[in-house]
Amino acid sequence: MSLPLGSDAALAADRSVFYDALDRESLGPLWESLKGLVPSEPRPKAVPHAWRYAEVRPRLMEAGSLISAEEAERRVLVLQNPGLPGASQITDTIYAGLQLILPGEIAPAHRHSQSALRFVIEGQGAFTAVDGERTTMHPGDLIITPAGTWHDHGHDGEGPVVWMDGLDVPLVRFLGAGFREEYNESAQVVTRPEGDADARYGAGLLPIDSDTRVTSPIFNYPYARTRAALESIARSGAPDPHHGFALKYVNPTNGDWAIPTIGASMRLLPAGFSTQPYKSTAGAVAVIVEGRVAATIGDTRIELGERDILAMPGWTSQVFEALEDTVLFIFSDQPVHEKLGLWRESKG
Amino acid sequence: MSLPLGSDAALAADRSVFYDALDRESLGPLWESLKGLVPSEPRPKAVPHAWRYAEVRPRLMEAGSLISAEEAERRVLVLQNPGLPGASQITDTIYAGLQLILPGEIAPAHRHSQSALRFVIEGQGAFTAVDGERTTMHPGDLIITPAGTWHDHGHDGEGPVVWMDGLDVPLVRFLGAGFREEYNESAQVVTRPEGDADARYGAGLLPIDSDTRVTSPIFNYPYARTRAALESIARSGAPDPHHGFALKYVNPTNGDWAIPTIGASMRLLPAGFSTQPYKSTAGAVAVIVEGRVAATIGDTRIELGERDILAMPGWTSQVFEALEDTVLFIFSDQPVHEKLGLWRESKG
Amino acid sequence: MSLPLGSDAALAADRSVFYDALDRESLGPLWESLKGLVPSEPRPKAVPHAWRYAEVRPRLMEAGSLISAEEAERRVLVLQNPGLPGASQITDTIYAGLQLILPGEIAPAHRHSQSALRFVIEGQGAFTAVDGERTTMHPGDLIITPAGTWHDHGHDGEGPVVWMDGLDVPLVRFLGAGFREEYNESAQVVTRPEGDADARYGAGLLPIDSDTRVTSPIFNYPYARTRAALESIARSGAPDPHHGFALKYVNPTNGDWAIPTIGASMRLLPAGFSTQPYKSTAGAVAVIVEGRVAATIGDTRIELGERDILAMPGWTSQVFEALEDTVLFIFSDQPVHEKLGLWRESKG
Amino acid sequence: MSLPLGSDAALAADRSVFYDALDRESLGPLWESLKGLVPSEPRPKAVPHAWRYAEVRPRLMEAGSLISAEEAERRVLVLQNPGLPGASQITDTIYAGLQLILPGEIAPAHRHSQSALRFVIEGQGAFTAVDGERTTMHPGDLIITPAGTWHDHGHDGEGPVVWMDGLDVPLVRFLGAGFREEYNESAQVVTRPEGDADARYGAGLLPIDSDTRVTSPIFNYPYARTRAALESIARSGAPDPHHGFALKYVNPTNGDWAIPTIGASMRLLPAGFSTQPYKSTAGAVAVIVEGRVAATIGDTRIELGERDILAMPGWTSQVFEALEDTVLFIFSDQPVHEKLGLWRESKG
Repeated sequence: MSLPLGSDAALAADRSVFYDALDRESLGPLWESLKGLVPSEPRPKAVPHAWRYAEVRPRLMEAGSLISAEEAERRVLVLQNPGLPGASQITDTIYAGLQLILPGEIAPAHRHSQSALRFVIEGQGAFTAVDGERTTMHPGDLIITPAGTWHDHGHDGEGPVVWMDGLDVPLVRFLGAGFREEYNESAQVVTRPEGDADARYGAGLLPIDSDTRVTSPIFNYPYARTRAALESIARSGAPDPHHGFALKYVNPTNGDWAIPTIGASMRLLPAGFSTQPYKSTAGAVAVIVEGRVAATIGDTRIELGERDILAMPGWTSQVFEALEDTVLFIFSDQPVHEKLGLWRESKG
Repeated sequence: MSLPLGSDAALAADRSVFYDALDRESLGPLWESLKGLVPSEPRPKAVPHAWRYAEVRPRLMEAGSLISAEEAERRVLVLQNPGLPGASQITDTIYAGLQLILPGEIAPAHRHSQSALRFVIEGQGAFTAVDGERTTMHPGDLIITPAGTWHDHGHDGEGPVVWMDGLDVPLVRFLGAGFREEYNESAQVVTRPEGDADARYGAGLLPIDSDTRVTSPIFNYPYARTRAALESIARSGAPDPHHGFALKYVNPTNGDWAIPTIGASMRLLPAGFSTQPYKSTAGAVAVIVEGRVAATIGDTRIELGERDILAMPGWTSQVFEALEDTVLFIFSDQPVHEKLGLWRESKG
Repeated sequence: MSLPLGSDAALAADRSVFYDALDRESLGPLWESLKGLVPSEPRPKAVPHAWRYAEVRPRLMEAGSLISAEEAERRVLVLQNPGLPGASQITDTIYAGLQLILPGEIAPAHRHSQSALRFVIEGQGAFTAVDGERTTMHPGDLIITPAGTWHDHGHDGEGPVVWMDGLDVPLVRFLGAGFREEYNESAQVVTRPEGDADARYGAGLLPIDSDTRVTSPIFNYPYARTRAALESIARSGAPDPHHGFALKYVNPTNGDWAIPTIGASMRLLPAGFSTQPYKSTAGAVAVIVEGRVAATIGDTRIELGERDILAMPGWTSQVFEALEDTVLFIFSDQPVHEKLGLWRESKG
Repeated sequence: MSLPLGSDAALAADRSVFYDALDRESLGPLWESLKGLVPSEPRPKAVPHAWRYAEVRPRLMEAGSLISAEEAERRVLVLQNPGLPGASQITDTIYAGLQLILPGEIAPAHRHSQSALRFVIEGQGAFTAVDGERTTMHPGDLIITPAGTWHDHGHDGEGPVVWMDGLDVPLVRFLGAGFREEYNESAQVVTRPEGDADARYGAGLLPIDSDTRVTSPIFNYPYARTRAALESIARSGAPDPHHGFALKYVNPTNGDWAIPTIGASMRLLPAGFSTQPYKSTAGAVAVIVEGRVAATIGDTRIELGERDILAMPGWTSQVFEALEDTVLFIFSDQPVHEKLGLWRESKG
């Protein structure tokens, strides 16, 4: 087609007038923003970042003296990615924080559309209750509180207990799909003995009439069992070049990830083993459970020890060198990408 | 637990100092933001808004004289929701725009992770090509250009052709999962005759060895067929009280929505019929294809005629009164909510 | 281990006495039958066999004068495979027959667990009713009467109408899963206009709230549409070397075969085209819809023309040479094998 | 329609001549057999029958002295249902037998399309190897040898070891889908340490890149774990009125039954508990693992003790009264019925 005659300057002026008019009519010229809206590859806003547990722990204890669990509802220090200031996010799609509970405290019962995982970092004697069953929390355990289930936390033991929370808060907010309700008492009524869900769903068996469920009915994946499984598989075969010896937590009713929106896994990297460069569209969070590792995320190299936490933005190269025998807990939004047909990975 | 002694003011001061320290260490106090992060129910930012085609059309023609389709890559006026200024979004999760193509023009071939639907508003003689097959576009046709497929548009006929684009751009951006590539020529090579995909997938049949696909292999759902189906079902039975006579566009390889992230449907509301109040977590966009309707979205009542477009934020009550026999095209992000276990609806 | 001393004859005698004792105690020595129970490859009992329509048709007309449709409930000549005498089976797992209905007759309404397909061979003016909707039957149409649905047949036109019935009778009998009920009147009440199911499910659309169904809700796949689709795909690309141009009939709610236990397909073989040798574990039945073909099934070569029917046992090589442009309707128990993880095919 | 005039006798004679002609042409009159082919409800040929272990065991030991495991390939006494003489079947669709292995013996490696379960009845020290991993067999363990996997059995310990085999032999034979191959040596090469599959798939975890599989990759479901799970769930809630406390063995990759064609479960019936009448289309086999029970199958009442085995035909009422705390292992063809849409149950 032929554009109207005139100088470039005149054309630019015409366009500017036109754009103003468009704006008043709730319209916009796509051609000015197309490349930004549909970029050639992902550009996460989150940046690689590590939190040293030695530095965070004193802040947690300070929080413990400033506010009670009940007043806070959840006494958590949010892990705020420096690339997303003010956003309460550790990656572009994931919320994470460190929660402290002290002996005798209760984090009151509520339920919400957001799915949560709890990865126990330190301490003994706390419990999480989910829909009528309490489970005791030990370091390394993965506890999930499925979307829509009543859950509360408490602590009958001694000393502080700390766990990491991981939630799909940004996703649920983005979709405008979040509902929350408070329970009518602080702690929910316990109706099933501890171990009931594990007996029903966690022994390679399922209740005879059970059907598939969106979220795993197992809500505690104990570290003792996970650690033993990793050790066992490390006795035969070589580690995966990109993941090491790696197992994912699954929903036994359908084989999907334990939480439909958050994918969690545990990995064992033998001392001296180094992973090959890897990236995927999923943003992820790693916790060093045992050992010592040098992580190179994009251009950033960081040495990490036990209980340190690492934010790994999506589509950013990851390399882990195990300086000792290392166990890593990693979770990400991979299941969301997979379910929507948007998952992509690149193996270097 | 016991809080340190002191006045409320002293406590507030302590906390303020503490919060500043946290912020420097990429930490944040959850208890100050919990209710906002996990709200009691969805609060979309988008607002109900209508675009009158009579008002938008002159702007489109003006755009036609200011920039060519090839220069623009896609000559589109974005429908910008007034509640989301500068965001290039019509709802909290959906991008929509009106695209103009003039005789002889080409909108060059590219492909991307974003899924798109094209709903034809006006004109004859344009075509869309998808992975080697061209399909002619008629008003009311739904044409999809699946994620990852090469697609371009052209126009061999006379007069302007306008369609509405609907894409999951905000979702793909949120997830950081978008990739885009340009084709090495303006228009892709045509390798299959028009109608080939419809013959293979659109006649209640599938290729004998075909398996399920993430996105529908049918890429044109012609209005003539959809309209006839609606008329046929309106001859027996009563309209659904919340949806009228309503059919959804599906992927014949698995019965899912035609696009895994965008749900599209067509509805016939007989003159005088009024829907019961309805809302769901999905944000939606409606196009009036035929007739005249009074829509009440939340507290906003709007009368709309042919080719007008309406933004309907999520979790906001919808009521439609058909002032004449009315056909509505509606699309939303419902499939995303469903696949992630986050779908909720409320029927009044 | 050591066997008791003694001659072979003594051992054989010992075993014989032992076997008799076992038999009285409802026990048997596996080692005498293992190879037969778990053979090295399938050995179907059915044999390749053709029925010439020119020969069968007079028998059908004779049946028409000996018994009424109502007295017979279904006036059908069963196609009995010579390898399975007395078994009312055309292959090892499939029942097939030719059904005749005369003007003014009714084949009374009933329902059963067995799934049936009807492939129309000859005549005009008959109808099948399924759950309240009648559909007119034309030669080449595939009509299905899903498991558990009320169905009856009638004839409002002139001249005989003949179709082939294909049912999973042997499978349902083997599993002991069959139930049958008679309707309380000869013909069921019609509650929906003709074309209703096709409008709801057959236009690339589904009712907005519909979910997956075990069996296709489409119950007439008209030949006009199937034939046009085959012609269309034959205009681009080459025929599959083993199947020709081949489309399968599917359930639009899940993309599975139209019937969960019977897989039906239609194929176009251009004149002069010859398929490569093919076999699968499924037993199959072919009807020549148009044209003329030489079929080699195992060692048997047979020339077949329009309306002739061919039994093809499982795991027996098939080759088709099209002597003219040929259209073949083929159905088999392939879906059963697939769903149970037992499907195997071999391409020569 | 009007039949030709004539006496009933003349008509019968006409029909007889006609039927003879049909038979010569591989045709048959459906109306003479319709009610038998499509019965009003299932009529299994199998009958309720019990095998007392006290009576069968001496026969097994006798077999042990007459033939070696290697000569027999599998030294098994088939449990032959008295209603199916000569059929090597315990129900209409299931094969079962009791297999004996003696110290030092090997049951040589082979693989086949048939799926097998092994339920250990007596003894210690035997093993089953599946695709390179050996598992030790203990009484009450459920061991599966999936379709298509190499498997062999051996015995490194002392004393006889007996297990029950359950296979889908009749189903695979009916479908003509069976293939069998011998391994080139007696015992397969062991490539993975014992416990490897359990570590990879049995701890609520799966390998990070694993996908769904048709058959469970867990191949030993140890009794110790199953028994503990049953005890645990019996501590909370009431038993299911028809099943007692009941858990099914599942495939952790998709939540389906462990074997796609055979459904296995374990039940705990507290002393004094009596199930309500129940029947389903599936035929089943029960083994009394612990305790003592009175079973009423159809009209047959039988008292059974530990290691006794019971055949329960399909669509036949079942009632169990626990005379002591009782553990029952039950397996059936329920998954086949379910996958084909033919499952039906009736709860009295």
